Amino acid sequence: MSIASSLTSATICGASVFPKALGYSSEFPSNLPSPFESSKICLTTSFPCSMDPKKNATWNLTRNVGPIQGIRCHAMQAAGTRELKKFELSDVIEGKQFDREMLSAIFDVAREMEKIEKSSSQSEILKGYLMATLFYEPSTRTRLSFESAMKRLGGEVLTTENAREFSSAAKGETLEDTIRTVEGYSDIIVMRHFESGAARKAAATANIPVINAGDGPGEHPTQALLDVYTIQSEIGKLDGISVALVGDLANGRTVRSLAYLLAKFKDVKIYFVSPEIVKMKDDIKDYLTSNGVEWEESSDLMEVASKCDVVYQTRIQRERFGERLDLYEAARGKYIVDKDLLGVMQKKAIIMHPLPRLDEITADVDADPRAAYFRQAKNGLFIRMALLKLLLVGW
Amino acid sequence: MSIASSLTSATICGASVFPKALGYSSEFPSNLPSPFESSKICLTTSFPCSMDPKKNATWNLTRNVGPIQGIRCHAMQAAGTRELKKFELSDVIEGKQFDREMLSAIFDVAREMEKIEKSSSQSEILKGYLMATLFYEPSTRTRLSFESAMKRLGGEVLTTENAREFSSAAKGETLEDTIRTVEGYSDIIVMRHFESGAARKAAATANIPVINAGDGPGEHPTQALLDVYTIQSEIGKLDGISVALVGDLANGRTVRSLAYLLAKFKDVKIYFVSPEIVKMKDDIKDYLTSNGVEWEESSDLMEVASKCDVVYQTRIQRERFGERLDLYEAARGKYIVDKDLLGVMQKKAIIMHPLPRLDEITADVDADPRAAYFRQAKNGLFIRMALLKLLLVGW
Amino acid sequence: MSIASSLTSATICGASVFPKALGYSSEFPSNLPSPFESSKICLTTSFPCSMDPKKNATWNLTRNVGPIQGIRCHAMQAAGTRELKKFELSDVIEGKQFDREMLSAIFDVAREMEKIEKSSSQSEILKGYLMATLFYEPSTRTRLSFESAMKRLGGEVLTTENAREFSSAAKGETLEDTIRTVEGYSDIIVMRHFESGAARKAAATANIPVINAGDGPGEHPTQALLDVYTIQSEIGKLDGISVALVGDLANGRTVRSLAYLLAKFKDVKIYFVSPEIVKMKDDIKDYLTSNGVEWEESSDLMEVASKCDVVYQTRIQRERFGERLDLYEAARGKYIVDKDLLGVMQKKAIIMHPLPRLDEITADVDADPRAAYFRQAKNGLFIRMALLKLLLVGW
Repeated sequence: MSIASSLTSATICGASVFPKALGYSSEFPSNLPSPFESSKICLTTSFPCSMDPKKNATWNLTRNVGPIQGIRCHAMQAAGTRELKKFELSDVIEGKQFDREMLSAIFDVAREMEKIEKSSSQSEILKGYLMATLFYEPSTRTRLSFESAMKRLGGEVLTTENAREFSSAAKGETLEDTIRTVEGYSDIIVMRHFESGAARKAAATANIPVINAGDGPGEHPTQALLDVYTIQSEIGKLDGISVALVGDLANGRTVRSLAYLLAKFKDVKIYFVSPEIVKMKDDIKDYLTSNGVEWEESSDLMEVASKCDVVYQTRIQRERFGERLDLYEAARGKYIVDKDLLGVMQKKAIIMHPLPRLDEITADVDADPRAAYFRQAKNGLFIRMALLKLLLVGW
Repeated sequence: MSIASSLTSATICGASVFPKALGYSSEFPSNLPSPFESSKICLTTSFPCSMDPKKNATWNLTRNVGPIQGIRCHAMQAAGTRELKKFELSDVIEGKQFDREMLSAIFDVAREMEKIEKSSSQSEILKGYLMATLFYEPSTRTRLSFESAMKRLGGEVLTTENAREFSSAAKGETLEDTIRTVEGYSDIIVMRHFESGAARKAAATANIPVINAGDGPGEHPTQALLDVYTIQSEIGKLDGISVALVGDLANGRTVRSLAYLLAKFKDVKIYFVSPEIVKMKDDIKDYLTSNGVEWEESSDLMEVASKCDVVYQTRIQRERFGERLDLYEAARGKYIVDKDLLGVMQKKAIIMHPLPRLDEITADVDADPRAAYFRQAKNGLFIRMALLKLLLVGW
Repeated sequence: MSIASSLTSATICGASVFPKALGYSSEFPSNLPSPFESSKICLTTSFPCSMDPKKNATWNLTRNVGPIQGIRCHAMQAAGTRELKKFELSDVIEGKQFDREMLSAIFDVAREMEKIEKSSSQSEILKGYLMATLFYEPSTRTRLSFESAMKRLGGEVLTTENAREFSSAAKGETLEDTIRTVEGYSDIIVMRHFESGAARKAAATANIPVINAGDGPGEHPTQALLDVYTIQSEIGKLDGISVALVGDLANGRTVRSLAYLLAKFKDVKIYFVSPEIVKMKDDIKDYLTSNGVEWEESSDLMEVASKCDVVYQTRIQRERFGERLDLYEAARGKYIVDKDLLGVMQKKAIIMHPLPRLDEITADVDADPRAAYFRQAKNGLFIRMALLKLLLVGW
């Protein structure tokens, strides 16, 4: 189990096998249909990874592990391909599971994805694979991005945006049961859920890879990856950059995840620019401090923007203010990215935004080459193509 | 018309032609586009089948048959391939349409389906075919199973879960008109409807195959087939088995259909174990008796389970109890499949459940090899693959 | 810009490039990923086309044109393939954008589409292309027709019927931003919207082709094209025909568009037959008169039908009458197409209907060869296949 044990507790692979596509053989119990068999990629790592046996044990306790899984796990351990593969990726659950070497390796694959031509053999590498998009709440933008990624690689998609119907209060099915059913129909599950932790629970149950496409106030790791990838692509580096995080820093899942990931790189400087009422919370500030990341709060966006590589603007979310529309109105108009701001920004700096935007970036900024937000959205496609490839057919 | 006439009134093929894929030629009226032409498989049978001319007559009266259909029917009759093909399958409407030879033949195909490899030519046998999933009420589980089946064979899918919009009261389109439109876009229709008899009506209209994916309180034939297939696969036989049907036997469409199908086999013994308030109804009991099937009611699940090959558990459906939640609570807790029950069950017996389950099977049962319910769900995939293949390209 | 300038203001191509599939090379700025690059077909025209510089100017003003588009446009102009291609088609926004030569050319392609066999290479001409069906209101019939068209040509589809979620009032994203995101995931956008003019706005934003699948009370150009195509296919000509438009002529988008398109042909005679309360409006009558089209109002459907080539029946839309159900009931029963009408119609005349129908055509008419409405619905498939082909890979 120790080889299979993984980067973090979020990367579960005790019950995994090598994918068929890689040509490894393994024995299956005869009462299980093999060709469309559930399978997880479980590649050994050449990077340092946490090997907390307690976490694995906990996972074993909370999971229903039958004899079948045991056999599979054995087959995997016997294979011993430690030298061949870069690191193990069996699920994508949270930003924290990635270190900078992993990010770099994933970005290399994403960069390959950008170059795939329509007619090439590369555009068919996931041919025959089925992705289930199991969305417990609609998120059309994220769903379309994943489905586009799968189809750009020749894969197929099963879609549901009303997954709540599976587990409605009336019927009362557990998430685990739903996952066990859906994994019978597909090769990978992309799940959006309204509850924090749902993705981890799903991954612990599934014998096929699970990608977290957002679980409530929790994580949205592919958004975090595409943000970092965009900075890498546009600025050319991640060490030594300075980044302004602007807008709703208290509630924005995106900026919080980005701050976590940036802390993995060297000599990063982060500026927080937000209305008083939606300031960045202390947990992130403490995390940055303890990881040696320099940060500073400012109320002068112009001044900050003039010295940053990245201005990451976010939407002030009306729904967070309840009935205090006066506070909302005051907060939303405070920090706007407009032509004037462009005027003070550096030539090679960029403006990012997770989208959708309202008027926190004015429309006349869009035509400027430094407006990177639509390229950023498009990068989501390449990151998701890369993850789907890695999870389904490996490196 | 007599050669075309069919197994039961539910298998309609008067207006059918041989599918293009089989290489039969037939003449079409020139004003109809031929390649994407609607077509039904209409293979002659080498099994005995009911040839009730009145049913065919009735069907002719209720159907709008134009000159076009007449020509096609003629072409079909002229072909005369009686010796080549096993039996005719032009639609899947109800469990009753299948006899044991047909079931056996379909199961043989399903078993082939289990073996299809991702990269093989077999995984492309439905390439170029389009399935329309026309769901008048959502049933994500069933829909995904059908769509997975189609895609596993290289076919494509058009999906709608809001088919009511087609025929909304406001617009008032008939089901027949909807079918005539959708058959122009697809090669096969999988329909879920809220009204009993809707699938039969659709099949009578369509010139392409129709599969009933559940019509209200009526039929759900693919569920019935996958249940029998699971018993066959897991126990190895259907003659001479003993089966306990447990839970809500009054309202459960599944157990009623299963009882019907089991009656086609020899020396079957059925036990009914249910709370008093949801007992199996007399029509099924009478049917079993008149078909020579031994059955017995029992209130002792432990005792029954100890001598059965199959314990088929079902969910007590809260919605059947209206405001009498006290009765519901009393009923639902009465017969639970748990570790204790596993203790008395035979080594090779299995536990089945149509899913979703609540707590009528405890989670600690899942890891036992005799817990067959997730394999059962997966078998739905293979049965549906088999039916799609048979309906679209024949044997 | 003048070569690129287009047929009407609706056909926007200032920011377009030749599609990859046609093998034209063009330079892209290095910060844009090229293979899945947005691209519009922008072929030069050999037909006379309106070249209103003011319209182009207006368009330039309302659009955010960055340096990227400028480069592309230059590349296109340099290519100069005037002699090779028939006409330019970069978006399908409104019926008016087509003249009779264009219609004829599109119909030629639609006719080829009818002949495509499942297994042929033709059925894969859109392989690798992705269509996004961005529906802001559900229209299952139209959506399935487009998706079938795309899949019949080997293309793939990203579907959303809840596109309002993209731009919900709560989140407040502009249509333009949504389009810029979706064009990153797909190669062509088919959009249904509740607001007139939305499709034109989307086309002005998108760097990939946009097809209007209905925008509120505005246009539904593919319906108009399929109607004319059906008359051409069934009657064999468009010049010199006489057409009865029957039913709700005041509110019916279809009959209005059809009248516009028929005015492009010679010696057409149009009869308006409708209840007083839903008469054809003056704008259409004036348009016909000024284009030399003979028209006449009549209250005698029998008499009109006896001398027409086409009886185009429409549904009286209940929702137009508000609470005046008495007026609705009076209007709807007035002009019915039934067996009696068939009796007076010419042998080669046809009955059309945009569907869905209620009882304005009785069911016993369906079996008559002159009942063309289901063939008409099917023609929508071929027209949409033709448009998708033309927009994505050209002639």
